[in-house]
Amino acid sequence: MNRTVDLNCDMGESFGAYSFGADEQLMKHITSANIACGAHAGDPNVMEDTVKLAKQNGVAIGAHPGYPDLAGFGRRKIELTDVEIYRYVLFQIGALHAFCKAQEVPMHHVKAHGALYNVAAKKKHVAHAIAQAVADFDQNLILYGLAGSYLVEEGKRLGLRVASEVFADRTYQEDGSLTPRNTPGALIETVDQAVKQVKGMLTEGHVTSVKGKILPIQADTVCVHGDGASAVRFVRELKTALQAEEILIESM
Amino acid sequence: MNRTVDLNCDMGESFGAYSFGADEQLMKHITSANIACGAHAGDPNVMEDTVKLAKQNGVAIGAHPGYPDLAGFGRRKIELTDVEIYRYVLFQIGALHAFCKAQEVPMHHVKAHGALYNVAAKKKHVAHAIAQAVADFDQNLILYGLAGSYLVEEGKRLGLRVASEVFADRTYQEDGSLTPRNTPGALIETVDQAVKQVKGMLTEGHVTSVKGKILPIQADTVCVHGDGASAVRFVRELKTALQAEEILIESM
Amino acid sequence: MNRTVDLNCDMGESFGAYSFGADEQLMKHITSANIACGAHAGDPNVMEDTVKLAKQNGVAIGAHPGYPDLAGFGRRKIELTDVEIYRYVLFQIGALHAFCKAQEVPMHHVKAHGALYNVAAKKKHVAHAIAQAVADFDQNLILYGLAGSYLVEEGKRLGLRVASEVFADRTYQEDGSLTPRNTPGALIETVDQAVKQVKGMLTEGHVTSVKGKILPIQADTVCVHGDGASAVRFVRELKTALQAEEILIESM
Amino acid sequence: MNRTVDLNCDMGESFGAYSFGADEQLMKHITSANIACGAHAGDPNVMEDTVKLAKQNGVAIGAHPGYPDLAGFGRRKIELTDVEIYRYVLFQIGALHAFCKAQEVPMHHVKAHGALYNVAAKKKHVAHAIAQAVADFDQNLILYGLAGSYLVEEGKRLGLRVASEVFADRTYQEDGSLTPRNTPGALIETVDQAVKQVKGMLTEGHVTSVKGKILPIQADTVCVHGDGASAVRFVRELKTALQAEEILIESM
Repeated sequence: MNRTVDLNCDMGESFGAYSFGADEQLMKHITSANIACGAHAGDPNVMEDTVKLAKQNGVAIGAHPGYPDLAGFGRRKIELTDVEIYRYVLFQIGALHAFCKAQEVPMHHVKAHGALYNVAAKKKHVAHAIAQAVADFDQNLILYGLAGSYLVEEGKRLGLRVASEVFADRTYQEDGSLTPRNTPGALIETVDQAVKQVKGMLTEGHVTSVKGKILPIQADTVCVHGDGASAVRFVRELKTALQAEEILIESM
Repeated sequence: MNRTVDLNCDMGESFGAYSFGADEQLMKHITSANIACGAHAGDPNVMEDTVKLAKQNGVAIGAHPGYPDLAGFGRRKIELTDVEIYRYVLFQIGALHAFCKAQEVPMHHVKAHGALYNVAAKKKHVAHAIAQAVADFDQNLILYGLAGSYLVEEGKRLGLRVASEVFADRTYQEDGSLTPRNTPGALIETVDQAVKQVKGMLTEGHVTSVKGKILPIQADTVCVHGDGASAVRFVRELKTALQAEEILIESM
Repeated sequence: MNRTVDLNCDMGESFGAYSFGADEQLMKHITSANIACGAHAGDPNVMEDTVKLAKQNGVAIGAHPGYPDLAGFGRRKIELTDVEIYRYVLFQIGALHAFCKAQEVPMHHVKAHGALYNVAAKKKHVAHAIAQAVADFDQNLILYGLAGSYLVEEGKRLGLRVASEVFADRTYQEDGSLTPRNTPGALIETVDQAVKQVKGMLTEGHVTSVKGKILPIQADTVCVHGDGASAVRFVRELKTALQAEEILIESM
Repeated sequence: MNRTVDLNCDMGESFGAYSFGADEQLMKHITSANIACGAHAGDPNVMEDTVKLAKQNGVAIGAHPGYPDLAGFGRRKIELTDVEIYRYVLFQIGALHAFCKAQEVPMHHVKAHGALYNVAAKKKHVAHAIAQAVADFDQNLILYGLAGSYLVEEGKRLGLRVASEVFADRTYQEDGSLTPRNTPGALIETVDQAVKQVKGMLTEGHVTSVKGKILPIQADTVCVHGDGASAVRFVRELKTALQAEEILIESM
């Protein structure tokens, strides 16, 4: 039984004059930050600012590589070869790492973004390319991936520590995948229900699907969202509620 | 008196489907490679291929950061603040470093590209921003800069090892700067003259300007060019001629 | 004496997932929209949406070309040759024009953005390059430029209709230029003062500088800002106040 | 029976400092040029130069839109929605059109590039999006597409003139599609065979597949390649051989 959990959030997704997400406020509530690396979002200015912000708040820093597509925010799949995925991910990890190194703060993990995250969950060869890039850069980095996905599996196979990621505000289907956003019932709207879902995952090791099936699930880290009107309130309330259940919120 | 010199060349400046420079052939003749980092040229594919190529040939690897301007090949000045220059350079060093780390080969130096190199030679604050990025990333990196320039000066001031760069195929003006390319007499066309100029720089520590003035100059590394029809032949002949003068060609 | 004035605003400066400016609300209050063309901001999605929005609101559409620098939002000068400026501007006009053509709405004007606007005000050769691109594309387009600047002058010289642009919320210096934003007293904070300045420009043909000098000025169009917390309120109040002075608000 | 054919070639695919294709030489031999529009290749400098070159040589000018992916040269599929494809294509047509307008030369056709061309051949909804963009921009433009593909079909359905494109140097499979490049027997290596294939297509209206099946085919335009060592020689010889067969080479 697990009574400790990490709260991770995508961060540093502003770009140039464009602001995105409530990074300053959220950084006070999360335990690990996935910082964009300039491919799907972010730029050298945003990256340094966000690394500094995470450091100040004692938040564990991760690289958040995505498809090279600023106009699509990394949400559009691009047909890259596995070799290209390996190289684009390695590039991005290195770029963010430079800011960690200059700020004398360790890099803690890597979490793929958007379409790359989704493809890596379902395609073993893509999962492998990402895991290999992480392992080749630094064997001590933790690879974050959707609980039960190929990304987690391939990370383990390469000897990496992995973090199985679950969602507080999304429902699960019979096969353990997330209900697609555009399907009715995909989102969990109340903090009460979100807390109940996370608590069940942690203390009982399972989640109940939309149709009532009980599914085993590993929950090391909970993804919380950084944009949207109520993002900050949701995270704050989720955190408070989990702590009230004597669940410890900390990074791995 | 200096009887050792490094031959450096810009490398990895291909991009996507676009080929640039005779990297494979030149890599056999040079001792240090300045590898583009995806901002003015290069991409993750080219970067990994070029790092591997340098490793295979025992050539010292340097990051070659430039202005973020693929369409301009880093030859157009962009009005960045010093903070931005620091961050863009740091980003690029980190990106290239990831490929060095994955290939288990050290990064040896940093040399700025094109317009950034030129601005850094003349603007102390820009030179400082670049030198600081190098120092903050790794105090052991060697900073390459135009002999006698602010870049060399600022590197020293921050405690970095520096390499004073000279040109074999360019003439010098009375103030020690290079004769601009579009001026008659800017280029040295024959290998004989190029060798003579380099030999004088190394063994006597001076260079003769276009108007005949004798100027003191520090020559740690000679820049050779990777593109152009006769690039490979020129480098090969220069190297042979310098060796015939019992000058040792090796990286610092 | 001029009792008619155009209110123009930069529009369509969102990009991908990034929202910028209160376009929908502002479009109800302005008479001409300068729509970004994908170089400093905007993308094909944003461009079509914004052209449609302007059409629905009966707002005159202009192309808003800028330096090709999304990360810098076109606010950083790039050292382009005049030929390059001509070509980058022509490209951008054409790109926006395609959406006008498909929506069967005319393109009305061209206004340069940010650093390009500022450089074109002061550098005759840059002003000429922009004006030439406009004239070569369509002799009927109106060229917007800072009142009294080279851009207005070069437009006239090429036989274009020009719109002299003034600012409601910025103060003027002795030489007729705008007080730089970072200088105390650069901004006019109250609507009352803004209205007073615009009214004086229109009805008396002059503006009073920060030091009290009376300067002649041509005011065909007033630039209002689309971002910032109070942008919409400011425009609405300015418009109402100008109308109360029996000044007609319409595009040229 | 058709005794007239167009020879088209992708042109203007250089980018910044990067040269691609033997445009100057090839422009003397082809009858229509598909000019890249800055998304997969090309930039405003290259676009103007190439439009001028086509004009000088009396070659019909077409826009050559592709996926927005310079690093991938438009050869990597990107998951765009149909609306996005419509808008990206419209943007690119407009951008190239501006250079035609300034040079007072008509735009003649549109041919999609690389992965976009391939996807449009097989996916009706993508074909429709492209055809709609062309039709909305100018109903008189000719839409080029793979003979027998959805692109040709959708173009017709929207009332556009279409050009069925065939290949001189590629073999065909039983279902009328091209043999994939990486399959043995995909390429036709000799000019003799290429001429024979094209002649059969034109005069008999059919092509023989790799397995010997006789397939009906419409041949309005033959695609010739602009890069590769022997590109210029191949085109010149193909043209001479076709003319010897009393086939007229001209644009539609």
